[in-house]
Amino acid sequence: MASTFGKLFKVTTFGESHCKGVGAIVDGCPPKLALTESDIQPQLSRRRPGQSAVSTSRDEKDHVIIQSGTENGLTLGTPISLYVANQDQRPGDYSEMAKIPRPSHADFTYQMKYDIRASSGGGRASARETIGRVCAGAIAEKLLKEYAHVEIVSWVSSVGDIESEAPNLATITRDQVDQTIIRCPDAKAAKSMEKVISKTKDDNDSIGGVVSCVCRNVPVGLGEPIFDKLEALLAQAMMSLPATKGFEIGSGFKGTKMTGSTHNDPFIMKGDRLGTKTNNSGGIQGGISNGEPITFKVAFKPPATIGQEQKTATYSGKETTLAAKGRHDPCVVARAVPIVESMAAIVLADCLLQQRAYL
Amino acid sequence: MASTFGKLFKVTTFGESHCKGVGAIVDGCPPKLALTESDIQPQLSRRRPGQSAVSTSRDEKDHVIIQSGTENGLTLGTPISLYVANQDQRPGDYSEMAKIPRPSHADFTYQMKYDIRASSGGGRASARETIGRVCAGAIAEKLLKEYAHVEIVSWVSSVGDIESEAPNLATITRDQVDQTIIRCPDAKAAKSMEKVISKTKDDNDSIGGVVSCVCRNVPVGLGEPIFDKLEALLAQAMMSLPATKGFEIGSGFKGTKMTGSTHNDPFIMKGDRLGTKTNNSGGIQGGISNGEPITFKVAFKPPATIGQEQKTATYSGKETTLAAKGRHDPCVVARAVPIVESMAAIVLADCLLQQRAYL
Amino acid sequence: MASTFGKLFKVTTFGESHCKGVGAIVDGCPPKLALTESDIQPQLSRRRPGQSAVSTSRDEKDHVIIQSGTENGLTLGTPISLYVANQDQRPGDYSEMAKIPRPSHADFTYQMKYDIRASSGGGRASARETIGRVCAGAIAEKLLKEYAHVEIVSWVSSVGDIESEAPNLATITRDQVDQTIIRCPDAKAAKSMEKVISKTKDDNDSIGGVVSCVCRNVPVGLGEPIFDKLEALLAQAMMSLPATKGFEIGSGFKGTKMTGSTHNDPFIMKGDRLGTKTNNSGGIQGGISNGEPITFKVAFKPPATIGQEQKTATYSGKETTLAAKGRHDPCVVARAVPIVESMAAIVLADCLLQQRAYL
Amino acid sequence: MASTFGKLFKVTTFGESHCKGVGAIVDGCPPKLALTESDIQPQLSRRRPGQSAVSTSRDEKDHVIIQSGTENGLTLGTPISLYVANQDQRPGDYSEMAKIPRPSHADFTYQMKYDIRASSGGGRASARETIGRVCAGAIAEKLLKEYAHVEIVSWVSSVGDIESEAPNLATITRDQVDQTIIRCPDAKAAKSMEKVISKTKDDNDSIGGVVSCVCRNVPVGLGEPIFDKLEALLAQAMMSLPATKGFEIGSGFKGTKMTGSTHNDPFIMKGDRLGTKTNNSGGIQGGISNGEPITFKVAFKPPATIGQEQKTATYSGKETTLAAKGRHDPCVVARAVPIVESMAAIVLADCLLQQRAYL
Repeated sequence: MASTFGKLFKVTTFGESHCKGVGAIVDGCPPKLALTESDIQPQLSRRRPGQSAVSTSRDEKDHVIIQSGTENGLTLGTPISLYVANQDQRPGDYSEMAKIPRPSHADFTYQMKYDIRASSGGGRASARETIGRVCAGAIAEKLLKEYAHVEIVSWVSSVGDIESEAPNLATITRDQVDQTIIRCPDAKAAKSMEKVISKTKDDNDSIGGVVSCVCRNVPVGLGEPIFDKLEALLAQAMMSLPATKGFEIGSGFKGTKMTGSTHNDPFIMKGDRLGTKTNNSGGIQGGISNGEPITFKVAFKPPATIGQEQKTATYSGKETTLAAKGRHDPCVVARAVPIVESMAAIVLADCLLQQRAYL
Repeated sequence: MASTFGKLFKVTTFGESHCKGVGAIVDGCPPKLALTESDIQPQLSRRRPGQSAVSTSRDEKDHVIIQSGTENGLTLGTPISLYVANQDQRPGDYSEMAKIPRPSHADFTYQMKYDIRASSGGGRASARETIGRVCAGAIAEKLLKEYAHVEIVSWVSSVGDIESEAPNLATITRDQVDQTIIRCPDAKAAKSMEKVISKTKDDNDSIGGVVSCVCRNVPVGLGEPIFDKLEALLAQAMMSLPATKGFEIGSGFKGTKMTGSTHNDPFIMKGDRLGTKTNNSGGIQGGISNGEPITFKVAFKPPATIGQEQKTATYSGKETTLAAKGRHDPCVVARAVPIVESMAAIVLADCLLQQRAYL
Repeated sequence: MASTFGKLFKVTTFGESHCKGVGAIVDGCPPKLALTESDIQPQLSRRRPGQSAVSTSRDEKDHVIIQSGTENGLTLGTPISLYVANQDQRPGDYSEMAKIPRPSHADFTYQMKYDIRASSGGGRASARETIGRVCAGAIAEKLLKEYAHVEIVSWVSSVGDIESEAPNLATITRDQVDQTIIRCPDAKAAKSMEKVISKTKDDNDSIGGVVSCVCRNVPVGLGEPIFDKLEALLAQAMMSLPATKGFEIGSGFKGTKMTGSTHNDPFIMKGDRLGTKTNNSGGIQGGISNGEPITFKVAFKPPATIGQEQKTATYSGKETTLAAKGRHDPCVVARAVPIVESMAAIVLADCLLQQRAYL
Repeated sequence: MASTFGKLFKVTTFGESHCKGVGAIVDGCPPKLALTESDIQPQLSRRRPGQSAVSTSRDEKDHVIIQSGTENGLTLGTPISLYVANQDQRPGDYSEMAKIPRPSHADFTYQMKYDIRASSGGGRASARETIGRVCAGAIAEKLLKEYAHVEIVSWVSSVGDIESEAPNLATITRDQVDQTIIRCPDAKAAKSMEKVISKTKDDNDSIGGVVSCVCRNVPVGLGEPIFDKLEALLAQAMMSLPATKGFEIGSGFKGTKMTGSTHNDPFIMKGDRLGTKTNNSGGIQGGISNGEPITFKVAFKPPATIGQEQKTATYSGKETTLAAKGRHDPCVVARAVPIVESMAAIVLADCLLQQRAYL
């Protein structure tokens, strides 16, 4: 199991859905960065389940504790241990799950790979694993802001067939994104998305969607060709999130339909720096940031766990049906927004430190 | 510069477009694997430029030499050094390039990152860098075949707007793929693609496309969650290739428009193993291979270097125009086919060795 | 700060002397290994300060909690998070230390490297950091025992000028080692060592010593030449411990005075395996274990913190004197015994998993 | 096989004793460093066998070629491929070696680990592997000199029982070291050493020795605690060299016999920096360089291959005798001098780059 990401800014996450707790160690964070739990909690709260009007009762959850690595509100340059206690330790009735692997979930593959798996919930494949990433991402963001004024904003750009208008990439903020529950800054599309999700929920079904992201003020020169091209690391980071099916940088798959003469980004002066007129490159050329906003998209599939009855088979191959009990998230994209931001921050922080070694 | 990929099966590439030579070291290949240059040359020849009828005169190029790591046709378990001499060392007139960064190429970002760059050609960002990957990939394929009968086949699934019919994923072979110059097994689509490329060439322009890939007989259990999920490593590997803009596993972005009830892959018995009826997962669940074919797509943008005159600016920001001289590849996808296969093989070989450590 | 060790069996430690707690994450431990806190606590208790008759009052300290990675007493193959709360969080009067770097301690270099340091105690350079290593080492030992019946025993072989007789390497046990407080199995030497330490303590001074170690039943073939030769990894592991000044494998520095004809270990049959008659190699040849016991020694300097008044200078270079207050360990070797065993176990476990990848 | 060393300044070596060639790739060297073959050749020539008066006839050997990574005498920031052709490819009669593993050599362990090994010479365990390290080390030295005026000088401090007087660590130069064939700057001891070696040679035997090293002008702050303490990395680097049995930093094993009051290095002002009066620490405290000279020693055993007849056993356990044919090096320490310097340079260059990331 590869639970560590990064070369200099190294993040190691731990924790299953129903063990004592989850969290991360961030090793390689520079010293003397202002850091307390209050820098981390906001993004952690944004990733929490049940944030819509109907579910504020769960507000008390997922409080992070910094166990090491800071003193008097400053980082020491030593490993920062981050811990979030699990509320539900080993509860529930999962006897059915013991026999039937959930379709398109990780039950079957974990069982085959490890010959054992957490008896309840998704274990390590649970979305709770992303708590450690979000904690680490918040620290990465502090670093990026202090060193380079980097701003990272994600939003939901589609749910099912509903696509939003693109926001103004130069100005879009998290506050604007959070205006709608679905975290789509296009209010009209947001309303349609919420309707689709509501209907999907009523159907005991789930639906996929796309999260878009822009990273502004990224210094020129980040990314380490050949194998650690900036877009390659972003792709790995995003595709390492649960439920992701695709990644696009800049023009993405649409770019494959274009000609070079329309796709190429001509150089022009932008104030005192050489920039590009268009940004089909998505802010990266040759694996290295070029000073333009980094733009990418991440595809999330419909959640695998649904209330609808599905025909499937037991581990031993016997035909059966499965209908998940309890409440399940019909669409993950709104919660994925801070997680995507966190992974982007971790990638950029690591690349920033690497580049500083050579300046 | 991060020129090493892999944890146990480790590939390090080297070489610019116009230095003495290019190649790779493969460290961590198991001992006693049958290996000579003839195992590597075929894929290397498939990636060569100018393989269509009009350009066979360049056939003599890119012969690989194994410099270490084998004896009497068997690997020793020691590093395998692979070398391909460059034919064109430091030639040509690149004085124009010294002043004008090519739009959407790596000239500008290399210059900004390193404050120096190879004076001619793309340097390390050149497609010649992929020679090392293809050599290493051929060795990875030998390993995968011997240990697990893995088969990897890529093909061109679209060029510009022309999309091909999907081939039979269970049977498609490289021979079938190589029936057309464009390496699209759908003969009708291939003809249209070739027309589009021909027209694009006449326009001194370029065009993008998509390469698809299937990996068959991949053992269940490969891939290391959390950060080294199999799809995350494939995404990194593919997005580390020059000119890539997107990656999709299984259903990809189309999967975001589906509901869970239609996207989920129900379990069914397939002979004596538990398989899935559909394969929207693309052969991977929870970051771990599930025994179904692994299927993914890679988006390639139109090549940046075009003969058409483009408005752009010099390094110092002065407006100018640039029209590339000489012959340039109007579409890279046909040549990308063996490169995609190679990177897939490297990822799978590394994951296979890692999984063996825990069996 | 490089807080992670290992390639497949990866250990990441965290924690300062006076933060909330210390511990480690073990990532890459194989699944289905029997593991509870009771497997870890014994070694943790052996490393605890104050274990002699006079100090049993501190017995309650340093209890480990497994926070993730196991269920029903079995490892899941997921990261194992290990946590030990600090008893003394941010106490004490360290105002003097703020101005005067302790000679031969890490105060000065941490301050220079990080431009900040933990205000009290040794921070990350404290011996408490080794708690995480000992927890991880206990897990490594479980793995080594289950997979290969490996036995690792360390003891104190010298304190100051007092050298012990070598124990029987084939039979020495931890129980025998623990017969004396100083953990020297040569009872007579032990008595002399204890006298020397007692006198040193009375002098408000400290004294160095040597810890020896034997690893039995190590399978042939462990160690990864070139840079990860088994003795090189052991050397790194041991020299990464606080207060170490030297490392010897097999004949060590004495071997430099020998001729090849006396130093070489001739091959002979031992039961059904080819062994060596002597073991100047220390169980390793060409960086790879040869099936003989692995034997090495680690030099520990006298602890830097002493009660005696020392002439030294403040950070700003003003001459001053420093005499440490409170009780300080006059000799670390007895406590170092389980720590050396732990690091040896971590190295061997990692090499064992790597070798399994190629079998 | 772990043939890569370093985190940012990464060195990967390749090559057996009798394959086409040996060498290394250096990835992560900063751009715009002046570098041609003439910067590398001197150290390479110093490591060559047969440099004494009697053997200058072999002078033509081991010429390095830079295959990539530089242009017009400057590094590009891209991988530097270094190649040295082998003169003796697959020659000689090694039929005896096929049946009898040489005592204390790597034949047996390679065979057991890999189930195959190079049929002639030491294969990858041969001293020729160090050619790649020396090439890379020369580049590391260029970097260290340009960035920080670091000076690294090694010498032979003992051969067998003959110990030299310590040279002046502040002024000793390579030229002074090279005044004697044995590379011991104490001329009287050198004479005795040469006599001992000469006698050993006459006896068809071999003898061990110790190489000492000082690194001057190392900036304060290098080394990454916890596991990558500077002395730990130096220990790994040195113990990864063939034939090494021990490593000491600063006071080494002698330090274990001292008391804290005599071992501690008091702080004093040295010009405008805070230094230490003594240097038992060997220039490192808490794993971090403190600005004083870094001093360490490396123990080399007597070479295993000797002309004397040895009683030993065949692979199948049959008693036999073995007497190596041909000329063999009776003592490796003189040739080890530049190799030790090279590994020290590689470690320091990597740590220097890492520290720059955080400045």
